[in-house]
Parts: sequence; structure tokens; C-alpha cells
Amino acid sequence: MAKKIVLGFSGGLDTTYCVKYLGEDKGYEVHSVIVNTGGFSDEELTKIEAHAYKLGVKSHTTINAVKGYYDRIIKYLVFGNILKNNTYPLSVSAERLVQALHIAEHAKKLNADAVAHGSTGAGNDQVRFDMVFNIMIPGVEILTPIRDLKLSREAEIEYLKSKGVEMNFEKAAYSINKGLWGTSVGGRETLSSKGLLPEEAWPTQITKTGKEEVKLSFINGELTAVNDKKFGHPSEAIQFLQAIAGAYGIGRDIHVGDTIIGIKGRVGFEAAAPMVIIKAHHALEKHVLTKWQLSWKDNIANFYGNWLHEGQILDPVMRDIEAFLQSSQATVTGDAYVLLQPGFFQVIGIESAYDLMSSKFGKYGEMNNGWTGEDVRGFTKIFGNQTAMFHLVKADAEK
Amino acid sequence: MAKKIVLGFSGGLDTTYCVKYLGEDKGYEVHSVIVNTGGFSDEELTKIEAHAYKLGVKSHTTINAVKGYYDRIIKYLVFGNILKNNTYPLSVSAERLVQALHIAEHAKKLNADAVAHGSTGAGNDQVRFDMVFNIMIPGVEILTPIRDLKLSREAEIEYLKSKGVEMNFEKAAYSINKGLWGTSVGGRETLSSKGLLPEEAWPTQITKTGKEEVKLSFINGELTAVNDKKFGHPSEAIQFLQAIAGAYGIGRDIHVGDTIIGIKGRVGFEAAAPMVIIKAHHALEKHVLTKWQLSWKDNIANFYGNWLHEGQILDPVMRDIEAFLQSSQATVTGDAYVLLQPGFFQVIGIESAYDLMSSKFGKYGEMNNGWTGEDVRGFTKIFGNQTAMFHLVKADAEK
Amino acid sequence: MAKKIVLGFSGGLDTTYCVKYLGEDKGYEVHSVIVNTGGFSDEELTKIEAHAYKLGVKSHTTINAVKGYYDRIIKYLVFGNILKNNTYPLSVSAERLVQALHIAEHAKKLNADAVAHGSTGAGNDQVRFDMVFNIMIPGVEILTPIRDLKLSREAEIEYLKSKGVEMNFEKAAYSINKGLWGTSVGGRETLSSKGLLPEEAWPTQITKTGKEEVKLSFINGELTAVNDKKFGHPSEAIQFLQAIAGAYGIGRDIHVGDTIIGIKGRVGFEAAAPMVIIKAHHALEKHVLTKWQLSWKDNIANFYGNWLHEGQILDPVMRDIEAFLQSSQATVTGDAYVLLQPGFFQVIGIESAYDLMSSKFGKYGEMNNGWTGEDVRGFTKIFGNQTAMFHLVKADAEK
Amino acid sequence: MAKKIVLGFSGGLDTTYCVKYLGEDKGYEVHSVIVNTGGFSDEELTKIEAHAYKLGVKSHTTINAVKGYYDRIIKYLVFGNILKNNTYPLSVSAERLVQALHIAEHAKKLNADAVAHGSTGAGNDQVRFDMVFNIMIPGVEILTPIRDLKLSREAEIEYLKSKGVEMNFEKAAYSINKGLWGTSVGGRETLSSKGLLPEEAWPTQITKTGKEEVKLSFINGELTAVNDKKFGHPSEAIQFLQAIAGAYGIGRDIHVGDTIIGIKGRVGFEAAAPMVIIKAHHALEKHVLTKWQLSWKDNIANFYGNWLHEGQILDPVMRDIEAFLQSSQATVTGDAYVLLQPGFFQVIGIESAYDLMSSKFGKYGEMNNGWTGEDVRGFTKIFGNQTAMFHLVKADAEK
Repeated sequence: MAKKIVLGFSGGLDTTYCVKYLGEDKGYEVHSVIVNTGGFSDEELTKIEAHAYKLGVKSHTTINAVKGYYDRIIKYLVFGNILKNNTYPLSVSAERLVQALHIAEHAKKLNADAVAHGSTGAGNDQVRFDMVFNIMIPGVEILTPIRDLKLSREAEIEYLKSKGVEMNFEKAAYSINKGLWGTSVGGRETLSSKGLLPEEAWPTQITKTGKEEVKLSFINGELTAVNDKKFGHPSEAIQFLQAIAGAYGIGRDIHVGDTIIGIKGRVGFEAAAPMVIIKAHHALEKHVLTKWQLSWKDNIANFYGNWLHEGQILDPVMRDIEAFLQSSQATVTGDAYVLLQPGFFQVIGIESAYDLMSSKFGKYGEMNNGWTGEDVRGFTKIFGNQTAMFHLVKADAEK
Repeated sequence: MAKKIVLGFSGGLDTTYCVKYLGEDKGYEVHSVIVNTGGFSDEELTKIEAHAYKLGVKSHTTINAVKGYYDRIIKYLVFGNILKNNTYPLSVSAERLVQALHIAEHAKKLNADAVAHGSTGAGNDQVRFDMVFNIMIPGVEILTPIRDLKLSREAEIEYLKSKGVEMNFEKAAYSINKGLWGTSVGGRETLSSKGLLPEEAWPTQITKTGKEEVKLSFINGELTAVNDKKFGHPSEAIQFLQAIAGAYGIGRDIHVGDTIIGIKGRVGFEAAAPMVIIKAHHALEKHVLTKWQLSWKDNIANFYGNWLHEGQILDPVMRDIEAFLQSSQATVTGDAYVLLQPGFFQVIGIESAYDLMSSKFGKYGEMNNGWTGEDVRGFTKIFGNQTAMFHLVKADAEK
Repeated sequence: MAKKIVLGFSGGLDTTYCVKYLGEDKGYEVHSVIVNTGGFSDEELTKIEAHAYKLGVKSHTTINAVKGYYDRIIKYLVFGNILKNNTYPLSVSAERLVQALHIAEHAKKLNADAVAHGSTGAGNDQVRFDMVFNIMIPGVEILTPIRDLKLSREAEIEYLKSKGVEMNFEKAAYSINKGLWGTSVGGRETLSSKGLLPEEAWPTQITKTGKEEVKLSFINGELTAVNDKKFGHPSEAIQFLQAIAGAYGIGRDIHVGDTIIGIKGRVGFEAAAPMVIIKAHHALEKHVLTKWQLSWKDNIANFYGNWLHEGQILDPVMRDIEAFLQSSQATVTGDAYVLLQPGFFQVIGIESAYDLMSSKFGKYGEMNNGWTGEDVRGFTKIFGNQTAMFHLVKADAEK
Repeated sequence: MAKKIVLGFSGGLDTTYCVKYLGEDKGYEVHSVIVNTGGFSDEELTKIEAHAYKLGVKSHTTINAVKGYYDRIIKYLVFGNILKNNTYPLSVSAERLVQALHIAEHAKKLNADAVAHGSTGAGNDQVRFDMVFNIMIPGVEILTPIRDLKLSREAEIEYLKSKGVEMNFEKAAYSINKGLWGTSVGGRETLSSKGLLPEEAWPTQITKTGKEEVKLSFINGELTAVNDKKFGHPSEAIQFLQAIAGAYGIGRDIHVGDTIIGIKGRVGFEAAAPMVIIKAHHALEKHVLTKWQLSWKDNIANFYGNWLHEGQILDPVMRDIEAFLQSSQATVTGDAYVLLQPGFFQVIGIESAYDLMSSKFGKYGEMNNGWTGEDVRGFTKIFGNQTAMFHLVKADAEK
């Protein structure tokens, strides 16, 4: 009896190759699975399914992971205002992990003997898939034909043609990866250390001019409404906002960062909703959190983002950090206002019952008799006490 | 014999009041001093000096602190890519400390009995001045008439008129503080949690349209040339870049943050050169530093910025952090390219002999025989080893 | 009608003075309250109550805070293995805050006009009491006669004698503060930077010789049993262990640290149970937590301890950190074995179903096919990849 | 012509095997090298050299690395008070890196084609050697016969006997690794999670009873004298102190920690001088450094120790941290007093011109007019201002 293999399948050249190679050359019973994290339309998913069956898979499964993707990862990226290297919302990093988790679950469910993914040996994705599979389904063999065989694109095409496969073999000028939390764009310009992507490379073209104000409503750190329109799930609010803000060409940038395997990589991305949400959420937090909440959130969330990027989502320290982040959102409730313009946006300000800058404070100030200049004078004396002593003692020791 | 007092003097209403009050009501021999951190022209300084002498000061001293300001503080703000709350380049915070240090030095030199500053009891500046004076010139009395007397603007004006003082008593719609590292703008809109500053409030008006590419050259983290024009001192490069970029209305934003005394404050600022320099410098660093250099720099520089903001520049831990930051700049040498546009800018990329993404690496890769997919497979197995064990052991413990 | 004041009362000289001064000189209706955090016996509490009523208080209240003290603070000190400056279990710092919280609650309940504590102006306690009162009962006046009047001990005694107060006016050679989480001891030797406390200064004398093994059982980080004897509440287990370990003179040390007001202070303490529990708990954690859990716990718990020490228990960031710490204890279940000896102790080892070093891992290792030397070779190549590139690029740039 | 290989050689079974295997089976010209980090006597080194030549090496080199070991690594371990997991002075971790660095230098000098070490595939050392070699001598092949061949002890012995090698083939009950910064001891008890080492397992037996006071003198954080005896180099002071303190059985403990490859490991160690020095140095620092110096030192040094442990000594971030640590030692000058007893020691106190607790401060306090209870009251009001506002605003928002 043929061994069962579960294959992460996108319908592209590499995973198409994998179906044929694993099924026909290696004799596996191939079960393809695609995990939609917000980048595929229903039509695309239907086409991919048809393509899979035509290639001869035993079963093909489409998993709609959008809501779970938000609940499991994006929520914490918002809570932590996480931008890798202060730039990149981890669009692809986060997505890949959710896909890996679902594929592993699927392999477990099918009691598969092996699991396969189409990653090459050059990037981050191989590590993320391997990592999650090693942890979640130890003992299940991991096959990575593209990484192992190191075939050229041409060789793959030739092989597929020889198998009678019909599909679009043309190479796009820019490789695109789309999901709920942003779209990455790679191409000629991102292969060197200098150069912006040309206008035509961006998947979402700029179609709006002028300015537009948007209102984002947060409850405990989660986006629940946009322009007073409420949504059943924050993932829907994100998609709604994306449609509004994307048309301004907002949230386009180039990220250069450290891959898990130590080399530096550069990638373009467009992430209008993620950037607007993170900046609006952060602005709200600046008004409602204490100084040390803001400081510790930065510190711990930076690590969270980097460790997630490196595929370590299953390290229990991530659960501990999520508990911290969740706790920190207790008062992050209110509205943030953002002004969109072609190419950039500004946070106009916030309104929140928890606003520590609220005019209500004046009232409290009075009730509380506030503080006096003398209090500040005393504060400063004590606040600088140790450093003052340090310099006196040092001068005395060294004279 | 009258006691000597050194007064930090800007020529504005509050410090004008202080001269008269300290000299005539309190009987001090007043020595005014103004520390220029890049915000005053020669004409303005001459006027301020004349104003001081007319008010009856015993001596007036103008200290040009621009270069020292850069060497002592701004340099490290660049090394650390420091933006408070990810927004504000600490324009005023840094400046105030340099002023306090110079005033304290001046008081020491004149062997003054007292020192005075014109701060109110509501903000950060009182803490910064008091702190530096307490530490550098312990035993020298600190007088703060404005904070202590809590006079209204009207009362101050009436008092000065009664003393025959002639000056412009009109209140500007927006209070402006200008220096080498940015200009702060406060007004009606910044007193509440919502609202952008109107166009006319910005000191630098937008006079350029279109796009313009700028080249910034760094040596060991310091800006040495702009568009291939070399400068004798980085402070000159900053001023040159400011003239180019300011005209695009770049670097305008509103910062909301924690004052030293615990309340939240909101302030507008324009800081074209600081923002462009920090983002360009950071982009260069992303290419030339290792992952943990970038990570630790963020962590430690955040603290540095916050502690500086709180007036603690004389804590010896600041010297330790500066040693770290200086060390980290050993390879931060190269050029960064930035595209300026009305309202925003983008970093185009960098060129550096230390670029870890350099195409030269390919060569090294070969020479070094690089690494294989098998290496990454092994890496991932080991990299995820502990978490895999954690989940196996946990499942076993809880079954 | 007389104004109501709630007074934190220990029955000592200072707070006895406060009763008389506030009640008779200032005309307040004095409500004394004592919060027992484990340092007082029932007999002592009865005596203190009688003393209070004899002094003329309107009411005296005894609050047994031992369990709440554990639940609200000590639990997290254990979770975080918190020793200030790697030495001191924060015995007094933690206790004072619980006392302040209870006194504030009591003042609120009695609808008091004012609240008083007997702290001097030299130490940490004044800040802790003031801080909690300012936050929890804003608007309620805080009176601190001892701090404000700066009376000598002799003057206080004279005053009390003049009021006909009878009590033991002798000064103890060592000032002792006892509570559930340790006893502090101050005296001649701790006033200078050198010198151990003499044997007779220690409240708990060494009465045991030889060696004794103790077993500590933890469930989710909390001590639930000692030598297989189970307790209804961890505070009871602590007291039970204290009786065993204290008799070995274990956990005696001298802490030198930063007071909240900037000066350095030195204090002796004995804390047998706290030291044994923290070291045993930490040993267990080293076996059951992942590397990054251990690392982040250290980092975040250090801050927690310092911020608690400085009286900031009500900053919401403390709740966020507690959420982190609570989450981290999910697998901290098992037994730790400790060998007690006169003067010191050693952790013998641990047993836990969650032990990542468990021999069970061997089994998993096999099942999982473990990893090979080749895997480690690949791991190392990738793990050192970036630094290798850094040095190659640098050598090339600088040649 | 035979290829040249440089082999790290200790004279033990594994590296003896390597000489024969590499030289006779693989045809390399073997150049053995031993790096003495303080664990070998001259007699031992002479014997090892003779053994090497007898085995047929082309050349054998003895490198005395003791002073350089201190200068390059131990110095910073002292500056940082580094104890891994608050327990282990990194005795072996640090030593292995210095050995790897010297071996790589030697290979470079000899222009070797390959380099070999005798590590197995189970521990940390393989990673440290591979890592340093990959980085310092890229392109030079790394051979690891023991790891690759996975021979049993018996097979190795049989092989060597077949080659006519004569040496002591008996296995010691405990494996010992000795160096300047401590001796590790592994054996039956350290293979499980529970159990102390038996008395006879410790290389240094307890030969002293009673108590003994020792004085350690530090200049800028470095140990320069013990009991007023000055040394030309701190490594000599360490060895001198080791002779004094080791005889009390001080500094024996068991460390359980994370290996680089993810598994947990347990190892006994004795490190009398390192433990006494670190605790004495830390005590001195508590008196002379500011609060935030102490806090940041802890944070950054923890990372330094962990990253060093993982072999990453060549990451440039380590140089940046060293710059921080060096800067922090500017005032760490003075004497620390330690009381030695069988099994444990206590720090008695310190004396330093930089002591911030110095009685001189009283004088300064007066000169400076110190501060008042009112100052502290004001300090506390401002220090708790934000949290007070937080609770007022929150109560209002939620009522």
C-alpha cells in the first residue's frame, strides 16, 4: 500500500512539480492542502482544487484560516505594535506559520506517513515548515523535493511538460505573496541593496487622490469598527480598512532584514491596513497606558516578533508573552482617527474614556489638590540624588 | 555686596521678568546667559544681548553650543536611531540638557551664589534644569520665579510695564522652540488628544514640489557628507540637509508622550533633517550590523532616550551606553539614498563596503562552499529541538 | 465634630507618639490599625490592641493579612525567583505595601478624613505608604508626624511620659522587622559598608547541627507540600518550612541596595524559607522551562522586584508582568530536594513529569530518530553564518 | 604531498585516536596543538608532548593561553558578575572558545588544509569548535572523527592497541575538566536530575577547617591583589586565591542548563576563586555603581554569558557589550572582604573611595543641605502621579 503524504499546495510551479514527483516518481499517495490566510479568492481556490485533482492527488483540502490566523497571531502583532526592524508587519512570516500549523494538523488527521512542502533551500520558509512539523508531528518524515533536487525552473517545466501537465509556465516579473496581513513583492530591485520598486510592481494600484479621514474603533486592543461600521470579527474590519486605505498606496515600503539562516534579505511589501492599524493602535496606547507599560511592551514585543519570524511560535515563552500582551490591553479601548493621503497617512488623534491626557484629569487634579512647584522641586532633588552623590564622591575620590 | 545670580535667558517674557525681579526686587547681581543650540541667528542673538543689557544685567554671555550639542548628545541619538515612542527625535529634551550644562558651567566659572531659570511648574524643563544644577553645582541656590510666583501672563506684563520695559508683549498663536535637532510647535490643537496642526502653524512652510533624491554619507555612524558635499563637522551637514528637506514639509508629526512628572503631553514638531538622518542611518545599519547588534541597540537606545528625556544625562550609566553605541558604529560606514517628496520620504537603499547583503557575499559563499539544504535541515532540527522536547514531555505528562 | 484619622500602628515608640500627638495635640479621632503579615503572634496582637485602647484610640483593628500577602505578592516573588541585587527576597519591601493597601482600604471603609503613618524621612517606607495612599485614597490627607517633626527618640519619650504613657522605652540593640517572607535586622554593623552581624543579633538562633534533607512539592509554581505534608494554603507551607530551616541559620545575609530616595542602604536579614523556596523553585524551573522562558523570566522579574521595592505595586504594568509570570508556571510542577546544613544549603535535584532532562527523552529521542552529528554540523554552519559573513566582508572592506 | 591538518590535542583517548586515524588511515600530516588555559602543569604538558610525538605527529605545539584567556574573556565575566542561570561561572564554555581561537590561529599560521577536534556529537563543544573554525578559517575543512564515526570507547581502545599505542586506557569514574576559571566534574550523579556528587568525586578535597578572612583588591573591576599581595597579572591573583579558598570546598555546585543543541544538561563544578571573586566584585559594585548601572549590567551581562556559552564570541555585538562593561568599571575600585568557611563563604563588606554609602556622604549631605521630608513627600506625589491618574481615570471610565 502506498504511503500517504500531505503536501502544502499553492498551485504554483514548485508545488505542482511536487505532486507529480511525489506521486509518480516516489509512489506516494498525495493529499494536497491549501491554507487560505486571506490571499485567495473563492474562484482562485476552486481553480487550484481543480488543478490539484487534475494532477492526480488522492484528496485536496481547502482550509479557510483567516479568522484563526487573526486570533492566533495577528491579534498579538497588533497588541505589540510589531514591526520588524521598525518597518515590516511580518506579513509573510506570520502567515507561513499558520499554514504550517494547519498542514501539520491535517497530516495528523489523515495519519500521514510523510509531509511535504515546496520551499527552496535559500529562504526562511523551509525553516518555518520544518520547525513546526518537527515539533507537532515528530516521526512524520518531511520531504522537500525543491530544496533537495535544486532543479532549475526550466528543468521543472520540462519535467512537468513531459508529464503532460498544462498550466501557465510564464514567470511573473515580480513574485507576490498575499494574505490578510499584507502582500510581499519581490523582484529585480529587491535583489540588491538599493532601489525602490517601480509603480507597476505594486499589486494594488493607487486609485484615490485627495485626503480622507478614517475612524478606527478598538475594544481591548482589537479593531472592532471602522468609520462606525461594526464587524463580527476583527479580520473583517481589517479587510474593510484595506479596501479603503490600499487605494492610496499607503503602507508600501521595502524591508531589509535578517533571515533565519543568517543572510540579509530585502523585500518590498504593501500593507495598508496593517500599517494604519498598528500606528492608530499605538497612538491610542500612548494615551491610555503608563510609561512602563509602553516601555515593556516595546521590549517584549520586539522579541515576540523576531522569535515568531524565526518560526518559534510553539516555544511556550510565546504563550507567556501573549498573556502579558493580553493583560496590557485592558484599557486600550477608544477611537483613533487617521488621515489618509496618496503615499502616506497621519494619525490625527484619539478619543478614549481611558485617556490619561483627558481634560477630566484637570478635574481630578483639583479634587486631588494636584501638585505644586515645590513638589516637583522635591521630586527632582530626590530623583537626581544618587547621581549627585556619585559625582560628589567621585570628585572627592579622584582629587 | 550683592549676591551673584546666573540666569538662563532667552529674551522672552518669562526670563525678561526674571531679570527685573531678581535684580530689582531681590537685589541680585544678574548675569544672563543664552546657550544657542542652533535655533538663533546672529541677528537674534545680538538683539537678545542688547535687550539683556537694557534690562540692566551685569553681564550677558552668548554661548555657541551647536557643535558641542552634536558631539555630546545628538551623535548618540543618531547612533541609537532614537525616536521617543517611535515618533519624536527628542528635539527639545536634548537641547534643554545642553543648555543646563552650559549654564551650570557658567555659574561655576563666575562663582555664582545662585542660578535661575524661567521654567513653569507644569512641564519637563524645570526638572531638567533643577536636576543638572543639583548635580553639577550642589550648594548653589536655584531660583525659579515663574514656577514659584505662578503669575499670569498679564501680571508679568503689567509688572514689566511698571518697570518701563519695552518689548513685544503679544502672545504668538503657537509657541515655537527651534534648535539643531528639530523645532517643537505647541498650540491649541496640541492641548487636546485629537487634531493636527494647521498648515500655517508650521515654522517651515512647504516650498518644494516634485521629488528629489538625496545622498547621505556616513562614516562610523556620523553624517559626513550630503550629496557628496563634505562638511567639517556633522552639525553643518545636519543644517545643510535641513535646508534641503525642510522645504518638503518632511518630518512633521505630533508626539504624545509621558512627561517626567507623570502627565501625558502632546506636542507638534518639525524635524526634517533628524527624521531623514535617523531613517537613513537605520537603513544602513540594517545592512551592516548583525541581528543581535540591531536588537540590543534598540533595547538599550530606547532606555537611553527615555532617561535623557527625563534629565538624567549625568547618570554614569549613560556613559556606559554611549560606549556601547560608539563600539557598534565600527562598520556603519557607507551611503544611504533617500527620496524626498512633499509630506514624506522613502529610503531608496544603501551602498557600503560593509554591506552583509553585498553581492560579494555570493563570492564568499562559493569560496566558503556556502551551505546546503541539508545544513538548514540540520539547523532547523537542532534549532527547534528544545521546543519539540517540551511538547513531547508535556503531552506525556498530561495524558 | 473631630476629624477621623486612620493610623498604621505597631505599638512601638513612634506610632505610640503618633496616637497621642494626633489625638490630643491635633484633635483627631484616632482609629489605629495593625496589619499582621506573619510577624506577630496572637499574644503580641492582643497586647498591642490593649496598648492602643489605653492610649485612647477610638477604635483599633487587627487585620490578618498573611494569606492575602502571599496571594497578592509573595506568589509572584516565587514565580520570578526574585532576589533584589541577587541577594534579598524583598522581605520588608513587599510587606510594607500590603500593609499600606490594607490601611488605605480601612481608611476608605471608615470614610476617614486623614491617614497617618509613623515613617521617618530617611527611608523607603515613607515613599511606599505615601505612594499607595496618594493612589488609592486621593484627597485623604496624609499625616507623618515623625517625618515632619524630626523629634529625637529622647524628645518622643519625654513627651509620652508627660502624657502619662507607660511602656518599655528601652531601645533594642538591633531593630527587627519580622514577616512571612523574612526578618530584617539593622544595627551598628549595617550602618557601615563592612561587617557581619554578630551571632546574638539574629532573631533565630542556630539550634540544629548535622544535615537534613527536605522535599518541597510545587504545583504550578506554588509550594503545596513540604516533606509530603500538604497544606491548605502555601503561606502555611512557608511557615512550616521556616520552622525546619530557620534552626540551621540558613538564609542569613546582608543586603546592600538602592533606596527609593537614591542613597545606598545596608540591612541584615534572615529568610530561611524564602531562600530555600526560591532556590528550589528555580532549580525546578531550570529543568522544565525552555531557554527563553528562563531568560525572559529573569529579565522581567528583576524589573518587577525593583519596581515593587520602589512602591509601584499599583502600576498596571505589574498586572501585565504577573500575567506573564502566571503563564510561565504552567509546567512548574514537581518536587525539589534540598540539603540543609548549619549556615547553608544545597539543592540536591528535582523530580518532575515535565523534566526536559527526563530519561523519557531518550525514548522520545529514539522514536523521533533524534538528530545526528551531521545535523549539528549543519546547525553550527547556519548558526554562525552571519558572523562568518560579517568577518569576511569586514576583512575585505578593510584590506 | 600529504595534506596538513591541525588537531586540538589533549592526550586523552579521543584525541589519541584522532592522531592515528587522521595520520595513518586518512594520510594527513598531523600537527597537534594543546592550549593550556590553566588546567595543566608543566609536567603534564611535557608528557602530552612526548605522547604526541610518540604517536607520530609531524609537530606538536603547546600554547600557554592563561593570561590571554583572562584578558579576552574572564575579565568580562568578572565585570558582568556572570553566572549562567545564576549558578555556573561558565568555566568550560569560556575555556573552549579560547582553545578554538588558538587552534584556528595555529591552523592559519601553518597554512593547514584541515583542522580537527575530538568532540562527540552530544555536547556543546562540537558547536564551539565548529563555529569558531567556520568563522576564522573559512574554507579550511573541519574533521571530527569521534562525532562522525560514533565509535564506542572499546572500539577506540581496540583500534589504538592494534596500532601499538601504549597509554592508560582506564576510564576514570568522573570526567574532569580543569582550567583557570573552574573545574567541571561529570559522573553518574550528573546524568540524572537528582543527586549531589560524592565527596571523593571533587578534585580538590577539603583540607581546611575554621574560618579565614580574605581581602580582595580591585582596580577598575580587576582583581589586582589578595591579602595585600599584589600580582603582575590578574590571572595570578586568581590562582593564588584558588589555592586559599579551594581548600574549604567552596564554590562546589551542580549546574543544570540548556546546551546549545537544546537538551538540558547537568554538570558538577568546583570554582572557589571564581565564585569568591564574582560575589566580592558584585558586592563592591553594589556600593559604587548607580541603580541603573547595576540593572543594565545584569541585563546585558546575562545575554553576554548565554551568547558566549553558545559559542558566539565572534559576533561583533560581544565587542559592543565589552565596551559597555569596561566603561562601567571606571569606579569599581576598592577592597572587598570575604569570610571563608568549609562549604561556603560570606562577603563581609567593602571599602572604597567610590563607596556611595560612604560616611563621607553625610558631609556632602550637609554641604549640599541634603533633602527634607517635604522633598520626599513631593517626590512621592510626582513619582506616583501617573499611576494615580490611571486609577482615577479608570474608575471614572468604568463606573
